[in-house]
Amino acid sequence: MPVGTQGAVKAVTPLQVMDIGAQMILSNTYHLYLRPGIKVIKKAGGLHKFIGWDGPILTDSGGYQVFSLAKLRKISDEGVTFSSHIDGSKHLLTPEKVVEIQLIFGSDIMMPLDECVAYNSKKAEAEKAVIRTTRWARKSKEMRDLPRGKAGERCETGGELFGIVQGGMYKDLRKRSAEEIRALDFPGYGIGGLSVGEPKELMLEMLEVSADNLEYEKPKHLMGVGFPEDIVEAVKCGIDLFDCVIPTRLARHGAFLTRDGKEIIRNAKFESDFTPLDKDCDCYACKNFTKAYIRHLFIAREILPLTLMTIHNLRFIMRLMEDIREKIRKGSI
Amino acid sequence: MPVGTQGAVKAVTPLQVMDIGAQMILSNTYHLYLRPGIKVIKKAGGLHKFIGWDGPILTDSGGYQVFSLAKLRKISDEGVTFSSHIDGSKHLLTPEKVVEIQLIFGSDIMMPLDECVAYNSKKAEAEKAVIRTTRWARKSKEMRDLPRGKAGERCETGGELFGIVQGGMYKDLRKRSAEEIRALDFPGYGIGGLSVGEPKELMLEMLEVSADNLEYEKPKHLMGVGFPEDIVEAVKCGIDLFDCVIPTRLARHGAFLTRDGKEIIRNAKFESDFTPLDKDCDCYACKNFTKAYIRHLFIAREILPLTLMTIHNLRFIMRLMEDIREKIRKGSI
Repeated sequence: MPVGTQGAVKAVTPLQVMDIGAQMILSNTYHLYLRPGIKVIKKAGGLHKFIGWDGPILTDSGGYQVFSLAKLRKISDEGVTFSSHIDGSKHLLTPEKVVEIQLIFGSDIMMPLDECVAYNSKKAEAEKAVIRTTRWARKSKEMRDLPRGKAGERCETGGELFGIVQGGMYKDLRKRSAEEIRALDFPGYGIGGLSVGEPKELMLEMLEVSADNLEYEKPKHLMGVGFPEDIVEAVKCGIDLFDCVIPTRLARHGAFLTRDGKEIIRNAKFESDFTPLDKDCDCYACKNFTKAYIRHLFIAREILPLTLMTIHNLRFIMRLMEDIREKIRKGSI
Repeated sequence: MPVGTQGAVKAVTPLQVMDIGAQMILSNTYHLYLRPGIKVIKKAGGLHKFIGWDGPILTDSGGYQVFSLAKLRKISDEGVTFSSHIDGSKHLLTPEKVVEIQLIFGSDIMMPLDECVAYNSKKAEAEKAVIRTTRWARKSKEMRDLPRGKAGERCETGGELFGIVQGGMYKDLRKRSAEEIRALDFPGYGIGGLSVGEPKELMLEMLEVSADNLEYEKPKHLMGVGFPEDIVEAVKCGIDLFDCVIPTRLARHGAFLTRDGKEIIRNAKFESDFTPLDKDCDCYACKNFTKAYIRHLFIAREILPLTLMTIHNLRFIMRLMEDIREKIRKGSI
């Protein structure tokens, strides 16, 4: 899933996102809740109508953003209080409120509020977060299952709720969290609390334990992980869905993805390189423009190269996923 | 003509420019000569191939940019010497060199080096500029008419040269300049030295004298003028071609064009306005997005609203030209 944090995948139009082959996008509840706010999105008739995107939308719970962006954060059993990174205003997000917001958005896949612990957390802390995550998951599900109309003015479409597995870097806690969340019978799962600074082997180990203790046939989303090499390994652990800002952010910083790794478009070696960013790529940027041109535009501080490299990097990831699906069908993964 | 100063119409792809209904774009010789430089464009096989634009390209002479952007400018009969606004490097542009550069670009319509005087110039100064502009026009034409291959490695396509009419704010000088340029038998004309600070009535008066002394059937381009109201009046004076950065620049600064004038998207009145930028517009932005959404993205400092408002503003001008053409056909202009 390309990420549209504030309701737009950065530097590309929804039409370009569809052309790339993306089927679903991810948006951030935290950002949209703070700006433009739920009033505006409710009046628009939901998030799909507000942002002009017809495909499915997954929204996260905002928990991770409170953890990473907000100031004066305080977590209790009730929820999280925090100050907005935009204007300092105070907010309380509870599990119920987070579901209510996403029901108003009309998100196709909603994520419940969870507690993510830091990489080096002690076991007692990680265990407390598992307990709280399960408790919040139950409350979220109850809120979600209220008859339509009960929880404020809900959007008429969307509204599936995934469960989130936590457990820090402890195998037994991962297993316990997965079992507890599984017992609540969600239609799919997010695997949270990974890619927070731990070595890659450890991440894959935690991922495997988490996925192995969930139903094989239900979709699993590894939240916020998206480097090509990580995707391939995570798929082998049973992960189906990914989101990451990496392809779009790299593009805006002047880096493009190829099968041989990342390249920097400003590099002088591309000055007279009249070949596409990636000769095997079928994206609009690669079919119509050269490295020399995109380099020129990037150095000249134009906006177009950000769009072209975003298209390419997203398409690169989509092609990677297409290849992986083909290999799964053929049995070679 | 949408303007692609550095070889790209800012914030939109060539595909989007075509979708808007634009047939020809304008690029700036001064900017492209300095960066990426003629070596790169020559190696690419010309400007069309370099920038991935299949339609016609008009390039200006760079004279106006030397006048407005460059430092340490010095004009003599030979040409203009100046320091680059990018790196301070020294350059000499002669009428011959300017044509040679544009032949390498393969521009479909080339503009000769001319001398533009300030609004308040004395008559003697304006007359000197007319004499020099005619002399340079003759030299430019001789350079252009050399057999292919003589002037460096020319691009195989393009290469029509327009004449430019100057004359400051003096009717008799405008007439004289038009007659002298007309005598050189160019396939079309640029009207230069207008919209440099003079009152609108004076501009239209000078425009009329310039156009009236040129062949009716040859295309006339009013360089750098593009406010909707100016376009309509200029058409009545006999102008066929326009270029201006106004629609694209306004868009990036958050303003959009409507039949009732310019509006600022940040305006609080648009917070919950779920109608398009312009209800009569058929552009991608108006058919798919609302003011409330574009306002949200603009305030959130996203890139997409710049693209959407650029598409709308350019399409607004294209629709204006379509309406004008229809009115000319019907005889109501």
